[in-house]
Amino acid sequence: MALPVIAWLSDFGTRNHYVGTMKGVALSIAPGATFIDITHQIDPQDVLGGALELAAACRFFPAGTIFVAIVDPGVGSGRRAIAVNAGGYSFVAPDNGLLTFALRELGAKTAVELSEARFALPTVSRTFEGRDRFAPAAAWLARGIALEDLGPAVAKIAEITIPEPITTPNHLRGEVLLIDHFGNAITNISRRALESWSDGAGITLAAGSIRLDGLVSTYSQAAPGSPCALVGSSDHLEVAVVNGHAATMLGLTRGSIVTVSKVFGGNV
Amino acid sequence: MALPVIAWLSDFGTRNHYVGTMKGVALSIAPGATFIDITHQIDPQDVLGGALELAAACRFFPAGTIFVAIVDPGVGSGRRAIAVNAGGYSFVAPDNGLLTFALRELGAKTAVELSEARFALPTVSRTFEGRDRFAPAAAWLARGIALEDLGPAVAKIAEITIPEPITTPNHLRGEVLLIDHFGNAITNISRRALESWSDGAGITLAAGSIRLDGLVSTYSQAAPGSPCALVGSSDHLEVAVVNGHAATMLGLTRGSIVTVSKVFGGNV
Amino acid sequence: MALPVIAWLSDFGTRNHYVGTMKGVALSIAPGATFIDITHQIDPQDVLGGALELAAACRFFPAGTIFVAIVDPGVGSGRRAIAVNAGGYSFVAPDNGLLTFALRELGAKTAVELSEARFALPTVSRTFEGRDRFAPAAAWLARGIALEDLGPAVAKIAEITIPEPITTPNHLRGEVLLIDHFGNAITNISRRALESWSDGAGITLAAGSIRLDGLVSTYSQAAPGSPCALVGSSDHLEVAVVNGHAATMLGLTRGSIVTVSKVFGGNV
Repeated sequence: MALPVIAWLSDFGTRNHYVGTMKGVALSIAPGATFIDITHQIDPQDVLGGALELAAACRFFPAGTIFVAIVDPGVGSGRRAIAVNAGGYSFVAPDNGLLTFALRELGAKTAVELSEARFALPTVSRTFEGRDRFAPAAAWLARGIALEDLGPAVAKIAEITIPEPITTPNHLRGEVLLIDHFGNAITNISRRALESWSDGAGITLAAGSIRLDGLVSTYSQAAPGSPCALVGSSDHLEVAVVNGHAATMLGLTRGSIVTVSKVFGGNV
Repeated sequence: MALPVIAWLSDFGTRNHYVGTMKGVALSIAPGATFIDITHQIDPQDVLGGALELAAACRFFPAGTIFVAIVDPGVGSGRRAIAVNAGGYSFVAPDNGLLTFALRELGAKTAVELSEARFALPTVSRTFEGRDRFAPAAAWLARGIALEDLGPAVAKIAEITIPEPITTPNHLRGEVLLIDHFGNAITNISRRALESWSDGAGITLAAGSIRLDGLVSTYSQAAPGSPCALVGSSDHLEVAVVNGHAATMLGLTRGSIVTVSKVFGGNV
Repeated sequence: MALPVIAWLSDFGTRNHYVGTMKGVALSIAPGATFIDITHQIDPQDVLGGALELAAACRFFPAGTIFVAIVDPGVGSGRRAIAVNAGGYSFVAPDNGLLTFALRELGAKTAVELSEARFALPTVSRTFEGRDRFAPAAAWLARGIALEDLGPAVAKIAEITIPEPITTPNHLRGEVLLIDHFGNAITNISRRALESWSDGAGITLAAGSIRLDGLVSTYSQAAPGSPCALVGSSDHLEVAVVNGHAATMLGLTRGSIVTVSKVFGGNV
């Protein structure tokens, strides 16, 4: 029977041996495991960015997938290393909020602290726990040990928060959480929040220096080079420039305000 | 028996979860499939660049490989999504010419439109068909369904063209199609076109501000830091700088003119 | 039984088809082999950088792993292509010193020249031996041929040297070998050299414009944004900025001098 899938996310980049070394360790423990990279290009120490990418990806993986997620400004400090079972998946990560959004979607969870030395490498570096602690723990899970074998139960794990959009009857004020590879500026306004607030009213949208009348349903509905707004593949409002880089062209970064307003009687 | 190989090419980049998510979807449908990345760093929306990289790679893959190629400025628009069998391989891609050069080498082909909803995810996003339509279709092919199961036959698929070199008896005028990672400037002049035109005559070559006497057969035949021209690994004429970045150093970009001239009696 | 692991390191980058094409070739010869990327972003032609990354990674891979390492300024020239067995691993590489540090740790070795045409592709390009010679050789090793089948024994393979730290009773002068993805500046001063020289004395450290009193044992022991020095995960002294990019912030590059001095009676 095939071993489970191990899916990797980190801020380690791809210039050094770090990711390969972690996989070498995991493969030494769990030969034949299948590895998938989510990304290793989370901005260094950007726990929020890592948490968002992980949450967007995880529910598309096969049941039983073990996620190793490492964005870890506190490596070597007192912060805990944890493993979590939720929704048929397992997660191995520093306990710094990186799992917040992934776990929010997956319901009831069980968490343990990675304290059992026999499931880590013999020497655990204070600067590269990915290699010495996280990868081995994930590989042992892939080999079938129980979560509880890794260490004692943890009652409460760390969470991070993201600013919630602010709603008034006529305005919905959110902000940009993520600029993606294409330059699309993805906001904290979910489809559900948007639809529940607008209730079918016409809308306009302001972001940086631009103003947009209504949403499109896909990029190609606007002219090449022109800005547009839409609900993207992760079900959040985003601002894009067709075949262009919205963040650069419109001056948007994480934290940029995006305001949606209702249109009344032709007055916008 | 091992499942077929799925080989991936896109302009999705590696900063976000997009590629990992596609693979998670494919692995959910076809557990145990083998995945190889060709590249995900095609310039955004650069269909020509994607088509060239795909064509250079595909014939080196095992028979039965399924290629998922996505560079898709028209995602969510009316453009078709297709699957194609040719030369013992399968391809899944938007119908925008991305397969042009790969298919040109592989001979007779059969194409269908990806219209069968049961071989896509239940909800198909208008902005991320890679996840919702292309990856599932490839995974189902890997599981052994017939191409014809994916949808109705397509008689004619889109093609893109590249400028052909212009030949006169004494000159062969081509242009740069691709700058690679090393800065080599790869042209549209094939080895065959060059040899058939030159017929053994001595040649000189002009590109940007430089002029080169003859070709070398490998980089190390010229001095470090000096420019040279050669027929590269994809059997096309390229301009290189030994241990340097030719495109930057010589000011070459896609579309830059490269002229080859015959040498007569010592007059060049 | 599972086929061996093939681990890849090169300076090919990830923008072009080169890495994918090599893997396609290898998979055609050794279906079912497991591939792990160490990195393909060694700076172009940086043999030293490649040698350091390879050495840091290799001992963490499963016994039997076959490493394909290609940083090859002399491709197509007279330089030999070799395969080496050492420490239970195999290596396939140009004979230019790229294996120096990996082999130094692994003890006795056997080396051969890749000269047997039947274990290369039928046509070997003068510019892409990764595809035509190295990947096939590795795949044939994965299929179980003996090292000796690949070609005649090589008595002595090329080595590169790195500057050794200079020690006086009160000072240890080393230099930066590598800037990693996080901007950490990793030096040629090993933990062993440092401990043997300092023999428990207090130390100060000077690098670029900064001076540091003593070492920390992990990044989080210093304040965010502040510089620190520590022995990192590869057991070498490094200079870091907590949650920052030390190389950029402190002006460090490969070759920058790092001087460690003993502290006596409060006079530093």
